Amino acid sequence: MAALQVIPIMFYIIGLGLGDYKDITVKGLEIVKKCDDVYLEAYTSILTCGSSALEEYYGRKLIIADRDLVEQGADDILNEAMKKRYCVIDPFGATTHTDLVLRAKEKGVQVQVIHNASILTAVGCCGLQLYSFGETVSIPYWTENWNPDSFFSKACNNYRNKLHTLCLLDIKVKEPTLESLTKKKKEYMPPKFMSVAEASTQVLKIIEKHKKTGETPEINEDTLCVGLARIGAKDQQIVVGSLTKMAEYDLGPPLHSLIIPGPVLHPMEIDYLERFRI
Amino acid sequence: MAALQVIPIMFYIIGLGLGDYKDITVKGLEIVKKCDDVYLEAYTSILTCGSSALEEYYGRKLIIADRDLVEQGADDILNEAMKKRYCVIDPFGATTHTDLVLRAKEKGVQVQVIHNASILTAVGCCGLQLYSFGETVSIPYWTENWNPDSFFSKACNNYRNKLHTLCLLDIKVKEPTLESLTKKKKEYMPPKFMSVAEASTQVLKIIEKHKKTGETPEINEDTLCVGLARIGAKDQQIVVGSLTKMAEYDLGPPLHSLIIPGPVLHPMEIDYLERFRI
Repeated sequence: MAALQVIPIMFYIIGLGLGDYKDITVKGLEIVKKCDDVYLEAYTSILTCGSSALEEYYGRKLIIADRDLVEQGADDILNEAMKKRYCVIDPFGATTHTDLVLRAKEKGVQVQVIHNASILTAVGCCGLQLYSFGETVSIPYWTENWNPDSFFSKACNNYRNKLHTLCLLDIKVKEPTLESLTKKKKEYMPPKFMSVAEASTQVLKIIEKHKKTGETPEINEDTLCVGLARIGAKDQQIVVGSLTKMAEYDLGPPLHSLIIPGPVLHPMEIDYLERFRI
Repeated sequence: MAALQVIPIMFYIIGLGLGDYKDITVKGLEIVKKCDDVYLEAYTSILTCGSSALEEYYGRKLIIADRDLVEQGADDILNEAMKKRYCVIDPFGATTHTDLVLRAKEKGVQVQVIHNASILTAVGCCGLQLYSFGETVSIPYWTENWNPDSFFSKACNNYRNKLHTLCLLDIKVKEPTLESLTKKKKEYMPPKFMSVAEASTQVLKIIEKHKKTGETPEINEDTLCVGLARIGAKDQQIVVGSLTKMAEYDLGPPLHSLIIPGPVLHPMEIDYLERFRI
């Protein structure tokens, strides 16, 4: 029998990986099994496998905690973390907890990050070279009075610089309903995830607006785009076509991402993308 | 006892992760254990744990294959891959095998990628926001007659756009010696890995050259830089200081990376970086 491994008292942040419960790393799993308390970050709704599948596989009770709770309750947790082993399982790949880590360090609590795959690099599976990506942008859900489009100028800037743009699409989880905002007990809207079709439709509206003012933006309705869905999961999907086509295409359940490749592609990138043509 | 899991006949590309043999994902490890043949990509010299540690932990004989061998021998492997399960373990995170995947698809061989952490996102552990990175650049080793500096204008371009630049540093593995180039049997130079100090020294030389022609590049000797070494491993190191300081600092064994942050940092980025000041 292997010697029982003792993990040090520490605050761990563990990347979950992109697909299902088996996408955690071996090291991450060992720590999850041995920590005194295991938090799972709020975005459970983005899990492709559901939190109960995680609990069963890990053999651990998971404390489902939204980001606010983790960060607001952080002081209590961190005060305990000198004596106990805590870990936070992070569906986004364990790199975005700057605030939490800073506060841990202030209190003298050791932090260890167990890295895992992230959508930021997994998108390389569509065949576009990761080194040719410019700044990543986020496309937010528009509301009646709020139609931000600054991401579009960033994407155009990348395009001018012959770089690809990865567009991360908005996620709304735990949004209080308007009616409940004034009440004591908040009620939440069902989670929603922007699809490639929704994102493309918004981009088309921005292009339309620019054209009305006589501009001709670098990115237009005919620009080649890549739509990605559920990358890393068994049923992942990649499709390639014009922005107009993307606005009509249904890629199924979340999570989706959209890539606007630069204007000049490497021959191998072209060969690769061709296989995913709509 | 859990039911014996059968993995489908397929060509697998499996990310190894950044640290040691336990940084493979649970899914990746299951596949490695069950494949008929397991290739380990050439860059074993960048492994922090050595390939024999991998063999022992996986309980599998690994076929050490450099990239050329994998790609040249690919036809034979792929012809067999309809009947056998092959996997390639990729120290870089399983996203850069475009050519191999294309050839597999041409032959009708199914390919599955098991993603893992990559240095491209793991650098987020220094506290700089991943969304504020521009184009990634590579700093090559200079030779007597070849001093390329195009990466520097890319980094300056990122800087002007208020974006951080991740500089990947050159790796020389399996470089034939000059004398052996004309012989039948190639002899190879010992592997070498560019350090943050070497990279910074080259950047300083480029700045010097620009200054001699009367230019004042955005990035200069006083620009704040982040030096990273062995990210994801137990003894990882992060240091922050001017480019001049980086050129003098010894970060120890490979692999190293250098970040040139943009000119405007978020207050939380500043707080975080301060903790790593030289």
